[in-house]
Amino acid sequence: MSHLSTGGSMTTYEQINYEVADGIATITLNRPERLNAFTAVMRAELVDAFDAVDADDDVRVAVVTGAGRAFCAGADLGGGADTFNAGSEHRRAAHEDLGEVDGAPRDGGGTVSLRIAASRKPVIAAINGASVGVGATMTLPMDIRLASESARFGFVFARRGIVAEAASTWFLPRVVGISQAMEWAATGRVFGAEEALRGRLVSRVVPDGELLATAREIASEIADNTSAVSVAVTRRLLWGMLGASNPWEAHRLDSRAMHELGAGADAAEGVTAFLEKREARFPMRVSRDYPGFIPEWPQRPGGM
Amino acid sequence: MSHLSTGGSMTTYEQINYEVADGIATITLNRPERLNAFTAVMRAELVDAFDAVDADDDVRVAVVTGAGRAFCAGADLGGGADTFNAGSEHRRAAHEDLGEVDGAPRDGGGTVSLRIAASRKPVIAAINGASVGVGATMTLPMDIRLASESARFGFVFARRGIVAEAASTWFLPRVVGISQAMEWAATGRVFGAEEALRGRLVSRVVPDGELLATAREIASEIADNTSAVSVAVTRRLLWGMLGASNPWEAHRLDSRAMHELGAGADAAEGVTAFLEKREARFPMRVSRDYPGFIPEWPQRPGGM
Amino acid sequence: MSHLSTGGSMTTYEQINYEVADGIATITLNRPERLNAFTAVMRAELVDAFDAVDADDDVRVAVVTGAGRAFCAGADLGGGADTFNAGSEHRRAAHEDLGEVDGAPRDGGGTVSLRIAASRKPVIAAINGASVGVGATMTLPMDIRLASESARFGFVFARRGIVAEAASTWFLPRVVGISQAMEWAATGRVFGAEEALRGRLVSRVVPDGELLATAREIASEIADNTSAVSVAVTRRLLWGMLGASNPWEAHRLDSRAMHELGAGADAAEGVTAFLEKREARFPMRVSRDYPGFIPEWPQRPGGM
Repeated sequence: MSHLSTGGSMTTYEQINYEVADGIATITLNRPERLNAFTAVMRAELVDAFDAVDADDDVRVAVVTGAGRAFCAGADLGGGADTFNAGSEHRRAAHEDLGEVDGAPRDGGGTVSLRIAASRKPVIAAINGASVGVGATMTLPMDIRLASESARFGFVFARRGIVAEAASTWFLPRVVGISQAMEWAATGRVFGAEEALRGRLVSRVVPDGELLATAREIASEIADNTSAVSVAVTRRLLWGMLGASNPWEAHRLDSRAMHELGAGADAAEGVTAFLEKREARFPMRVSRDYPGFIPEWPQRPGGM
Repeated sequence: MSHLSTGGSMTTYEQINYEVADGIATITLNRPERLNAFTAVMRAELVDAFDAVDADDDVRVAVVTGAGRAFCAGADLGGGADTFNAGSEHRRAAHEDLGEVDGAPRDGGGTVSLRIAASRKPVIAAINGASVGVGATMTLPMDIRLASESARFGFVFARRGIVAEAASTWFLPRVVGISQAMEWAATGRVFGAEEALRGRLVSRVVPDGELLATAREIASEIADNTSAVSVAVTRRLLWGMLGASNPWEAHRLDSRAMHELGAGADAAEGVTAFLEKREARFPMRVSRDYPGFIPEWPQRPGGM
Repeated sequence: MSHLSTGGSMTTYEQINYEVADGIATITLNRPERLNAFTAVMRAELVDAFDAVDADDDVRVAVVTGAGRAFCAGADLGGGADTFNAGSEHRRAAHEDLGEVDGAPRDGGGTVSLRIAASRKPVIAAINGASVGVGATMTLPMDIRLASESARFGFVFARRGIVAEAASTWFLPRVVGISQAMEWAATGRVFGAEEALRGRLVSRVVPDGELLATAREIASEIADNTSAVSVAVTRRLLWGMLGASNPWEAHRLDSRAMHELGAGADAAEGVTAFLEKREARFPMRVSRDYPGFIPEWPQRPGGM
């Protein structure tokens, strides 16, 4: 599978759908007969899809959802007891080389999470059903999570004898707080949309039939009103500053960003449109105008 | 404008009011005809006012509010399309040199935020109306935010083609969580007091006529019952430890603080008053007794 | 007091009770006539009890509660004005040498907090009454806090002329957010269970008679369904990643953890049991199988 053109409104993958309309890329996990269980193929296609999202200036926001009645039921357990055993025949058959960290093969879910974390476009999860294991952890670097009433969640790793993966031990306590993170991860409990809402894993629960429309409404609120470059830089700063020891680090980067973007065409248009009480038409493009001085995030630490 | 004496109960500024009574400094943004829009003058006066708050042992808590129907509607857009363009004639007319970071002029809102973050007295925002742009981000390093029912909020930067400033990319996700921060910053939405309460941007919403009284009630709870030095050290540690990678860093500082303050006059009085079931009268003063071993915060990183 | 055998179901201490049943160690602060006020003896016994919890593979979860009507009313103020004065006769009589940090004697509450933070088993606080001062801060490195309706809380340090200790300035803002942390610490207010729930200090409030049963129900959910090694590693990663600047640090550790545990006996059993729709019986033991590559946490910083 190689990087596919997104010149049209739809790109063909094997285990996901990718569709662009009205500034929104809808990425649909698409193995409904297996409850959209996560595979090496799906992993690679998701990384590719987020590359496409970033490369396409017509895409302002990505929405991720699942086909059929699940969002993603977790790793495909077709390998049975050897499912998580990297040395097994089953796993070698997938023959996917993601490189190593500290001498261990990189966790596949983590490559997706880190790719989503680096997205220059906001990402909305529209969780329409079971969101379990990697099907839950992959949503954590997304910006907004919405659940349908029939959604169910589980950080079930401790019930399978493994650990919370996909860099979720970094993301989960930042999204829901350390106490809620520990309760869900230590029990491995499967829980419903209302518990997810109370625990702030999702920001809204909507009737099943209204989930995608709600996600697209928020996406349009972004796409229709904001500068794409402003949103890309702000996303990078908000996530990146979670790891900064000091607000001076934000001051250092936002001073320069205000200096460069403040003199740019989007700022001129944004203020003028506001004063003229009309919609802004921002001319700048992420592919061309994203400021070069901002370091990438997440950053692979030096010693690795 | 230079540092003004605060010997009396009121200090005269041009665009803010500063009044001290009952241990509480009330700082009122005061350009009601411009919805208290932020200017270079207001910026300098706010920094000066927080210097005065720290220098005056009679001030135990600062309350920040707005005159008229707004809290602060954001940057004054009187410069039109050039409002945020540091190279423009409009901005050069303000001829304010705040120094540089990484070769860019320092963001003005950030100088206020970092000054408030460093305050040795707790700060309460009494948000009485529109709190938009820098009018929202300047409140994030304050400790407690209260809203009146008619308050409105907006992190509208992406709608103006700029970025979330005033070091808010560091503060906002720590105050409201990363998901809520991303939703508000990416949409640039203007929202009401109830959404602010649900999203934990404010801790209470009160009827318009009760806002300042509520703020002063909380301020008095601090002023009437606690050691000023204890509060100053605790504020420094709580905010500073947000950037510490490890609770050992807190243990290192609080062990020494307990050792020094535990042998001090306020601890003797605090315990004695408690055992005698009477109000404590703490003798120590921040200007004289704040422990010298605690490093300043926020700290300007070395390489800058 | 030395490390006591836990071969039986009960270990004898002077100021706490320690009892193991059904995979749960119940640690009861036991000076009911003094509202379980904290002493040097209790401090040492708590550290010893958490050593016992970690050493005993039959213990899957620890529950901490108080005997009588309080949880822990804070430091024993029997020393009067000299209670917190390390140089006083009163304190020297306790002749406890905990070592120094930066030339100051280590704060006793901090040695308990850091020990609990390092626990390889999840810890549930069942807060049955007054939880004040160190009686509140010692619960912060616990994973889940439950309150009975009659519980009361107070971070009262500023009312006693001292500072928030026990490394609480690191833990508290991570548990409840910086704004709520500042409000409670700056006012020193004593507050009830409902305010604790609204402020997310506790996750549930239950009738007084149901507190311990509720705590044990959650503990059993962990003990009955999960791999002890998975839970220990996940606990270490979730807390430890609060201090990591970047999700790559989680990816680095969880890739290796997935690689090692994925090939282990618990993963094989966990997946097999799930596919066979039966309860898993995990063979691995924390004392023997906890992965050696994971660094200890919290880590005493090098320069100290």
